[in-house]
Amino acid sequence: MLPSPKTASFPTIQEIWEQYRPDLLKVESQIQKSLASEVPLINQIALYILNSGGKRIRPLLMILSSKLCSSHQGEDHILLAAVVEFIHTATLLHDDVIDEGNLRRGKKTARTLWGNHASILVGDYLYASAVGHGLSLNNQEVNLVLQKACGHMIEGEMVQHTHNSDLGIRETDYLRIIQHKTASLIAASCQLGGIAGGGSAERKESLFQFGQNLGIAFQVADDTLDYIAQKQRLGKTLGADLKEGKVTLPMIHLLRTCSDEGKRQVIRTFGSDGSSEKQFDQILDLMHRHGSIEYAFSVARGYVEKAKGFLAAFEPSVHRTALHVVADYVVSRDH
Amino acid sequence: MLPSPKTASFPTIQEIWEQYRPDLLKVESQIQKSLASEVPLINQIALYILNSGGKRIRPLLMILSSKLCSSHQGEDHILLAAVVEFIHTATLLHDDVIDEGNLRRGKKTARTLWGNHASILVGDYLYASAVGHGLSLNNQEVNLVLQKACGHMIEGEMVQHTHNSDLGIRETDYLRIIQHKTASLIAASCQLGGIAGGGSAERKESLFQFGQNLGIAFQVADDTLDYIAQKQRLGKTLGADLKEGKVTLPMIHLLRTCSDEGKRQVIRTFGSDGSSEKQFDQILDLMHRHGSIEYAFSVARGYVEKAKGFLAAFEPSVHRTALHVVADYVVSRDH
Repeated sequence: MLPSPKTASFPTIQEIWEQYRPDLLKVESQIQKSLASEVPLINQIALYILNSGGKRIRPLLMILSSKLCSSHQGEDHILLAAVVEFIHTATLLHDDVIDEGNLRRGKKTARTLWGNHASILVGDYLYASAVGHGLSLNNQEVNLVLQKACGHMIEGEMVQHTHNSDLGIRETDYLRIIQHKTASLIAASCQLGGIAGGGSAERKESLFQFGQNLGIAFQVADDTLDYIAQKQRLGKTLGADLKEGKVTLPMIHLLRTCSDEGKRQVIRTFGSDGSSEKQFDQILDLMHRHGSIEYAFSVARGYVEKAKGFLAAFEPSVHRTALHVVADYVVSRDH
Repeated sequence: MLPSPKTASFPTIQEIWEQYRPDLLKVESQIQKSLASEVPLINQIALYILNSGGKRIRPLLMILSSKLCSSHQGEDHILLAAVVEFIHTATLLHDDVIDEGNLRRGKKTARTLWGNHASILVGDYLYASAVGHGLSLNNQEVNLVLQKACGHMIEGEMVQHTHNSDLGIRETDYLRIIQHKTASLIAASCQLGGIAGGGSAERKESLFQFGQNLGIAFQVADDTLDYIAQKQRLGKTLGADLKEGKVTLPMIHLLRTCSDEGKRQVIRTFGSDGSSEKQFDQILDLMHRHGSIEYAFSVARGYVEKAKGFLAAFEPSVHRTALHVVADYVVSRDH
């Protein structure tokens, strides 16, 4: 295949995946190797979800962050990428039980196939296993970064639940929640890449900030796609957040800008299990008319630009370019 | 109160609790101090379950194990006791969701009061927090002991679930399950006490073995009490295991010794949600006639004696005596 004219100046996300495939394959191999429970069913369930089509964004960010810092190149970033993917997978397993989710990425969730108990326990196992593999590096800095990220993720999830069906939630509260529940682990992935690559304290902090802003952008985009993505691409039911009572940025914007009649319409629809496709379409129509979808994407893009700003401290390189491309990708994927 | 004549030779469990109260109070204070989430609801739920009447057996074993080894006396065992109690509490929160339990120690479970999502997330938080507090000691030996125990606990729970309603489960399988799901953390508590007390490798191994055998005894006794304890003492529904399809030692013994008609009766009753009190009484009557309850207690006592054997390596002391008393207590409590 001939490279497209664009390739010479700025690679596409597909070209980035190709370029770093050798490292990503090492991560895949590490994931398989690290899953070594004596209980075959634990490995089976964990592999089912680990291999269910996740894009390995966190491992890719870790690899790129590590290479961005590194003159010497060890293999710690490969192990740490598997660790972070284990933690991410543990949260998916628990989230599915919490949200009573039946589909994820277009496939049946583990709880649908094996039951809630298996999802909870395999999630617990993956987390404990991640801690164990992290400990094997005997690096207290690594341990503390991972532990802090996990604490924040769980706190973010908990605060999100206390705001369930809270139509009065403010944009700042929403952003703080997603900073904790989503951006913490993405920030940690970048920071750990910096640690594995032997980066200076300043560079590791820049990578953390890059990841944190990118993580916020990622979740804002994800929440917005929940309203507008094509069903087959999203791999789950459209409007799931609306049905579950999750108030995300497009809705916060809508409620801030629409008329009282619009608000009443939202209240009637919101959190109603039986809300029809027609009701959903009406809400979506309101959002389009008030520019709520466009607003949410503009916020996401703003965080992407802020994230990129933290890369300015690094000299230009293929790895820095790749991080820019990945950053743009997280707010443009699937639509 | 005058001491009973027995006191001079061998203290009672109540006297042991009194004797070590200063340390246990430090553990209580550490538990409160260590619960420092920025999310008040997490602290509230965690404290509800942490203060719901657990006997703090693991902290007591940790304190005694530490003192048994120690000439110098630091405070690491206090922090580690809180860590182990956090891990134990995390498993209770997740178990209640898995077993759909509504009562624990006679009080409503967290999931009944705050929902499954809160139980799962606060369990996750307590585990992450335990890891964090463990890490603060910057002692790789401690980290590895904790991590191994957690892995085994979860594997034990998972294997137990794969054997749910399996009336063909063998005694050796059952014992291996409870060794993992229950004895791992009790063994780790004793081993960590040895580490905190600066014990030799040999002594730490003896304490681990003591704890492991005691942990098995503890769970066998607990499973047997599920059939015969007085309801108000057990704090949960009698015969819960029978209803949930958990095949424990009294049942394994009964099926090994009863007639085909007895087996058919068990099969009819087992795992039936609607099994009546009358049916339960019939099973219990069968167990009494076949000596199944007495057999299970004798197995538990056997493990207690085996546990005590591992203390022979230590010179006689008040702490060793106290460990003997606690060991006897775990198979005699509540009946």
